[in-house]
Amino acid sequence: MDLSTVSGLTEALLAGDRRALARVISHIENNTELARPLLAALYPKSGRAHIIGVTGSPGTGKSTLVNAIAQIYRGRELSVGIIAIDPTSPFSGGALLGDRVRMRDLAGDPGVFIRSMATRGSLGGLAQATADVIMILDAAGFDRIIVETVGVGQSEVEIASAAYTTVVVEAPGLGDEVQAIKAGVLEIADIFAVNKADREGVERTVMALKMMLSLGVPDRFQVMHHGRMLPVEIPQARRDASAWTPPIIKTVATSGQGATELVEAIENHRLYLEQSGGRLLRDRLRAATELRMILRDYLLERTLAQIPQEKLQRTIEDVASRKIDPYSAVRHLVNEVAKV
Amino acid sequence: MDLSTVSGLTEALLAGDRRALARVISHIENNTELARPLLAALYPKSGRAHIIGVTGSPGTGKSTLVNAIAQIYRGRELSVGIIAIDPTSPFSGGALLGDRVRMRDLAGDPGVFIRSMATRGSLGGLAQATADVIMILDAAGFDRIIVETVGVGQSEVEIASAAYTTVVVEAPGLGDEVQAIKAGVLEIADIFAVNKADREGVERTVMALKMMLSLGVPDRFQVMHHGRMLPVEIPQARRDASAWTPPIIKTVATSGQGATELVEAIENHRLYLEQSGGRLLRDRLRAATELRMILRDYLLERTLAQIPQEKLQRTIEDVASRKIDPYSAVRHLVNEVAKV
Repeated sequence: MDLSTVSGLTEALLAGDRRALARVISHIENNTELARPLLAALYPKSGRAHIIGVTGSPGTGKSTLVNAIAQIYRGRELSVGIIAIDPTSPFSGGALLGDRVRMRDLAGDPGVFIRSMATRGSLGGLAQATADVIMILDAAGFDRIIVETVGVGQSEVEIASAAYTTVVVEAPGLGDEVQAIKAGVLEIADIFAVNKADREGVERTVMALKMMLSLGVPDRFQVMHHGRMLPVEIPQARRDASAWTPPIIKTVATSGQGATELVEAIENHRLYLEQSGGRLLRDRLRAATELRMILRDYLLERTLAQIPQEKLQRTIEDVASRKIDPYSAVRHLVNEVAKV
Repeated sequence: MDLSTVSGLTEALLAGDRRALARVISHIENNTELARPLLAALYPKSGRAHIIGVTGSPGTGKSTLVNAIAQIYRGRELSVGIIAIDPTSPFSGGALLGDRVRMRDLAGDPGVFIRSMATRGSLGGLAQATADVIMILDAAGFDRIIVETVGVGQSEVEIASAAYTTVVVEAPGLGDEVQAIKAGVLEIADIFAVNKADREGVERTVMALKMMLSLGVPDRFQVMHHGRMLPVEIPQARRDASAWTPPIIKTVATSGQGATELVEAIENHRLYLEQSGGRLLRDRLRAATELRMILRDYLLERTLAQIPQEKLQRTIEDVASRKIDPYSAVRHLVNEVAKV
């Protein structure tokens, strides 16, 4: 097949050709001329995979846990795509560690495909690129797609919103701010994994999570911060929420302990979403977010292309030297374009 | 003065009225009708403050370090504005811990103003809101503005780009992924603080940082990851970079040890930027980023307002059910608007 055309690439990818898959992803990442036609051609073929987000602070052992999960799925003859979002530079653009480290355990298995993506560019570019690569792996027929992100920053939450099941990984003894962060992840976590469960303090971590989740989710709870107990509100959206209570699974990723239970919990959540209509709901939310992001970038590109470079540079100078505020400057620029 | 009008609020804020300041920030955060006129009126009064970004993983003790820095500046009769970006929910929207915890040490001092901002909304909203609040504190006459963010996610880097001097806080023994993250922060760090320097492993952390920074920044270095040494490229931009080598300062924030040295390093970097023209350069970069963000949001809002709600809902359904891909859907929507 001709891997230089949209139809050739699409056909080969759908037939399971891994070289075609890698090439399609490169087109997307480099935003070549073929990128959009490829996305348009493959989109209708997607929608079958279960997408799993795995997120947690540095040091929780997420990558090792993702490895363990992937191996269990492989044992069940399910194919697995892994997308690792590396917390590397927004400038260098190179994916860093994920690929090379993971290759050791999963290399050579055609049922596994691993891709690292770096935090490059800015302005939501990564969230969109990740959504696109998820869709491509989905169209390529992977049964489970795992997206691994670090931390719970804003963009990580955006990326997590692409998953059907979000696993939040905790570990004992990561400092007093960790408690505070849990308040934020409460709303995105479908499952908690307490990794490094052979370490001291694991029961304290589990108890803290249980407290948060207990009693059908209370309207407030307390967190320890710098030695003081502080109240934290739990938002209405979560309190009203579903019949699903996030299970807390203890794991030791390095030995594989608890990994099977974690996979069971993920599969239970998958069934729950399908039976409760939650999957449709998440599909709709995701479609709305994606439309918004793509529309926004499309409009920006189109407008910037219409503004003369010299005019743009002068405006930047004027804003930098405080001659004009950026909001007024934007209005001027838009009016200028409208006149043309 | 009439604190319900733009001119009344502006005048009071510039005269040092803290109540007016709080009210202006609320207008910005809630995006009221007065928000843009206020930003336009205050923007020309900004540009005097030195803006300091402080970022690091959870558990490094950033908040305590920011407290210590603020107290040293207060001892030098410089006023300090603190903006804490809380890693809380994108949904609940409430700022969490920063204010209450910090109030203990700095409360009642009119030379200090503290504001927590939550990771709410999505799509770059926080970065823009933070930039706006920085500008307002700048116009209000604060000499130093400290922006504290967690982690090195994409949005954290965006927020850091608003600072003239970025302090990256590390701490000994936060797990093996921390090493990997350092590769990413190398490019945004102007100063490294190794906090909790009374703990075991501090010299190892310092050595790892020194290795990264040594020899005028090499073109690659090695990081330890899961027990293996892996090579990491250092991007050209950094290698070509300036005469500034990021100093590494050991601190114990809880006792204040090293905090004076850290403030000295920040002030040295401030002078360096002023003398080298680096401040102008960063102003221009920031203006360009800000223009882009505001233009993008403006165009999106304007276009969404022109699309009938029913049409938008139908499009979301079609994308969710894979009848059409989101890129084609966006083109259809834009064409529809153009026809009107």
